[in-house]
Amino acid sequence: MSVSQRAVQNAKETLEQLDQKISHFEELISLANWDLQTGAPKKGRALRSKAVGTLSSEVFQLSLSKEMGECLDTLSQPEAQAQLDMVTRAKVREYKRNYDRSRKIPPEEYKEYVVLTSQAQDIWVEARQKKDFSLFRDTLKKIVDFKKKFIDYYGFEEHPYDALLDEYEPGLTVKTLDQLFGDLRAKTTELLARIQDSANKPRTDIFQQSFDIKQQEAFSRFVLSKLGYDLDAGRLDVSAHPFAVGINTKDVRITTRYMENDMRSAIFGTIHECGHALYEQGVNPKFEGTVLRGGTSMGIHESQSRFLENMVGRSFEFWTYFYEDLKRFFPDQFNDVSIEEFCRAINTVEPSLIRVEADELTYNLHIMIRYEIEKGLMSGELEVDDLPSIWNQKMEEYLGLTPPDDAQGVLQDIHCSFGGFGYFPSYSLGNLYAAQILYTIRKEMPDFYDKIRNGDFLPIREWLRENIHQYGKLYTPQELIKKVTGEDLNAKYLIDYFEEKYSKVYQL
Amino acid sequence: MSVSQRAVQNAKETLEQLDQKISHFEELISLANWDLQTGAPKKGRALRSKAVGTLSSEVFQLSLSKEMGECLDTLSQPEAQAQLDMVTRAKVREYKRNYDRSRKIPPEEYKEYVVLTSQAQDIWVEARQKKDFSLFRDTLKKIVDFKKKFIDYYGFEEHPYDALLDEYEPGLTVKTLDQLFGDLRAKTTELLARIQDSANKPRTDIFQQSFDIKQQEAFSRFVLSKLGYDLDAGRLDVSAHPFAVGINTKDVRITTRYMENDMRSAIFGTIHECGHALYEQGVNPKFEGTVLRGGTSMGIHESQSRFLENMVGRSFEFWTYFYEDLKRFFPDQFNDVSIEEFCRAINTVEPSLIRVEADELTYNLHIMIRYEIEKGLMSGELEVDDLPSIWNQKMEEYLGLTPPDDAQGVLQDIHCSFGGFGYFPSYSLGNLYAAQILYTIRKEMPDFYDKIRNGDFLPIREWLRENIHQYGKLYTPQELIKKVTGEDLNAKYLIDYFEEKYSKVYQL
Repeated sequence: MSVSQRAVQNAKETLEQLDQKISHFEELISLANWDLQTGAPKKGRALRSKAVGTLSSEVFQLSLSKEMGECLDTLSQPEAQAQLDMVTRAKVREYKRNYDRSRKIPPEEYKEYVVLTSQAQDIWVEARQKKDFSLFRDTLKKIVDFKKKFIDYYGFEEHPYDALLDEYEPGLTVKTLDQLFGDLRAKTTELLARIQDSANKPRTDIFQQSFDIKQQEAFSRFVLSKLGYDLDAGRLDVSAHPFAVGINTKDVRITTRYMENDMRSAIFGTIHECGHALYEQGVNPKFEGTVLRGGTSMGIHESQSRFLENMVGRSFEFWTYFYEDLKRFFPDQFNDVSIEEFCRAINTVEPSLIRVEADELTYNLHIMIRYEIEKGLMSGELEVDDLPSIWNQKMEEYLGLTPPDDAQGVLQDIHCSFGGFGYFPSYSLGNLYAAQILYTIRKEMPDFYDKIRNGDFLPIREWLRENIHQYGKLYTPQELIKKVTGEDLNAKYLIDYFEEKYSKVYQL
Repeated sequence: MSVSQRAVQNAKETLEQLDQKISHFEELISLANWDLQTGAPKKGRALRSKAVGTLSSEVFQLSLSKEMGECLDTLSQPEAQAQLDMVTRAKVREYKRNYDRSRKIPPEEYKEYVVLTSQAQDIWVEARQKKDFSLFRDTLKKIVDFKKKFIDYYGFEEHPYDALLDEYEPGLTVKTLDQLFGDLRAKTTELLARIQDSANKPRTDIFQQSFDIKQQEAFSRFVLSKLGYDLDAGRLDVSAHPFAVGINTKDVRITTRYMENDMRSAIFGTIHECGHALYEQGVNPKFEGTVLRGGTSMGIHESQSRFLENMVGRSFEFWTYFYEDLKRFFPDQFNDVSIEEFCRAINTVEPSLIRVEADELTYNLHIMIRYEIEKGLMSGELEVDDLPSIWNQKMEEYLGLTPPDDAQGVLQDIHCSFGGFGYFPSYSLGNLYAAQILYTIRKEMPDFYDKIRNGDFLPIREWLRENIHQYGKLYTPQELIKKVTGEDLNAKYLIDYFEEKYSKVYQL
């Protein structure tokens, strides 16, 4: 089929109009969700959710509309592609990926699935409260059946789970992950054994104190401003689960939570979300109001938060700069704690039952357990009925612990209940990407840790902005990591980082 | 044309779907506007406004769509009307009013007008800053020309200005207003002269003190909760211009502002907005997600805020209940001020230049000046060029004052710049409705002021909810005031209220 220049121009204009409308609608949906999780009065929330549902289905209909289909068709022709600028090609790629995936599912089945997963969350909550997997089992079976059918609709080349991974990390496959996670697991297990054998355990009592919440908030704001987060283009609030949301590029909000008996939650939560927020604040303003405005994938997004939280925020150099300030905000709590003790304490490794409370090293083991279970469920090697026993068996094998009940085991995460299979690996990918990026930045900026020690964070933010943030979704995650680091994603860098770090912390 | 039951049923369902969609979209627009005026980071606001613009034009298109037109056509047929329940008839009335008005304006002209008024606000701001009407004159001429053309499109029976009044207070005419304002003006002028001659002037120095802003906020919340505002279905924030917004019936937010050197602004502002908010919180929940959810008119809405602020909140009985609390929140400020002195002070009458700072009595004179000028502009009896001199002449005549410059005169209000001709009378209508409602409630609840004295506000809120709030837009303002008070709107009640009140305050 031959495509005239005129047809390409028209299709491009239509796409731009649809893109802007969708982006604007999504901006208002994001704002409403932020509000729901921060300050919305509790009695109004159920009604608000309906309004959000109405606008969300409008977005869904627009992105699957005949108009969208036609212009994507036109713009995907090789002749048309050759005429397009890079930005439009990326937009076409993003919308087409979504369009193709969604169109493959028969609308009736999709509707049933949406109803199922919206009910599933309440059932999961109840099952978790009652610590009884069997209450959630039949619902989960139905979700898994849907996912398997969807996989058939989507299609895949090597492994059924690839079809789901692709949703969160475009192009990611089981083959790649098996390699990455295999390497990482071997090293993690070996390192964990050495750590557990070490006689040089950090003090861990220093956080069992009372930390004034107003002071925690003041310190969080202080750190945010030093890290280059623009508070005139964002704000800091409180929510039950911390998050960052880019409502638009000049309105990127962070939430955190303050626990009186442990200030780590607020500080590292804030730094983590700041990493996400710097990404969204740093996207090229010309992508505003377009699909390219967000981060390119879950994994790359998570790399930015983990980089800031762990590679920067848990480093000795970071606290060399901030420790005196911390003592100023909390004058009584750290009198007898040296900076060395403090830094070792915030880097303690200790196998634990709950993923979201895990330390930096063992965290990835929690992810691998979920990865293997999801992969097995999708390939048919595992059945839902087997889950609690498989879970506990893997916890014992990977972490040496046995959950006392399902709530602290197989029922701990919400993800299954909304059908988020394929999501978990992103978290570990974030760590892997972050370490590879760290290697590159240290090569290109040899005084990286000197800068941190001096509180000179802006050049680091600028490097990330220049190399990663500004591009938004212009590049796929694979393209981006290659462009930034010169090679494909590789577990080597995270492995070396862990070795270097824990050798120091545990004096191995 | 004969209409089948089936066709009516179909049209009804279509209207319900459109109604829900429009209501949900408007909910998200309200939320975004609330956010823009409260906590949105400043750099993101311009972008947010674009997103709001996109969703607003979606709402505009839906309410003028072919689909909407067809179902309104069907449902307006007498045969169809006979089959409809009262609620659907009211929905048809509301959408049809809007549809008919908007369809009368040629789209191209409307677009030009929207562009003009959006630019006009900046021009007005600059002119006001420079205190120079001539900078705004030509823009205002264009707006007036548009309004005159629109009046021709809308059509009118007696006076051109009727076509504009109808937008804010459906059914209101110049004939009615001339009568109401004529009566009110005569009484106000006479009373004002007696007040100015009175030797018993209240102390006015008691508010020239420092009032801690945190304490002002705490006291505002304390008063709100006593008045029956549900803080689980709302929240209190700060904004440059106080407002109340019903995002949905269970999420009705209030804003206020705190001035350190005068706590009246926060307290009476909060009580005023609380009156609006009680209206929105009190609408029948079955109207949620429909066009009937809001207040029935600007005037009735304003009656609820003025009733609470002035008739309740400035009464001696109100402060009999709250004065000890006020002293508890501000222990140093009112030591030597008796409750009588306090109540006289908050009811001081003093002609002034600025409408929004005017006292309860002279406020209506400010409105009458605007009413007469707008009426004259629309009928052609006045020209834009004459405005500054006419303004100053009327200020002298009505209030005995001459503005020192245009900023404190003809340029003080934003309303002209957005083309809000016909809006001002609503404010005084609010006072008139409120006094007539006060008369009725005192008749039906003879211990009305005893209840206030005892802090027993819930029965009063329930009376308002039962008689006014619950109906939302089910009744037109005329129907409602007749249903509540047994007669049409009449200036007598406000006149009697003023006589009674100021006889006491000024010991006339």
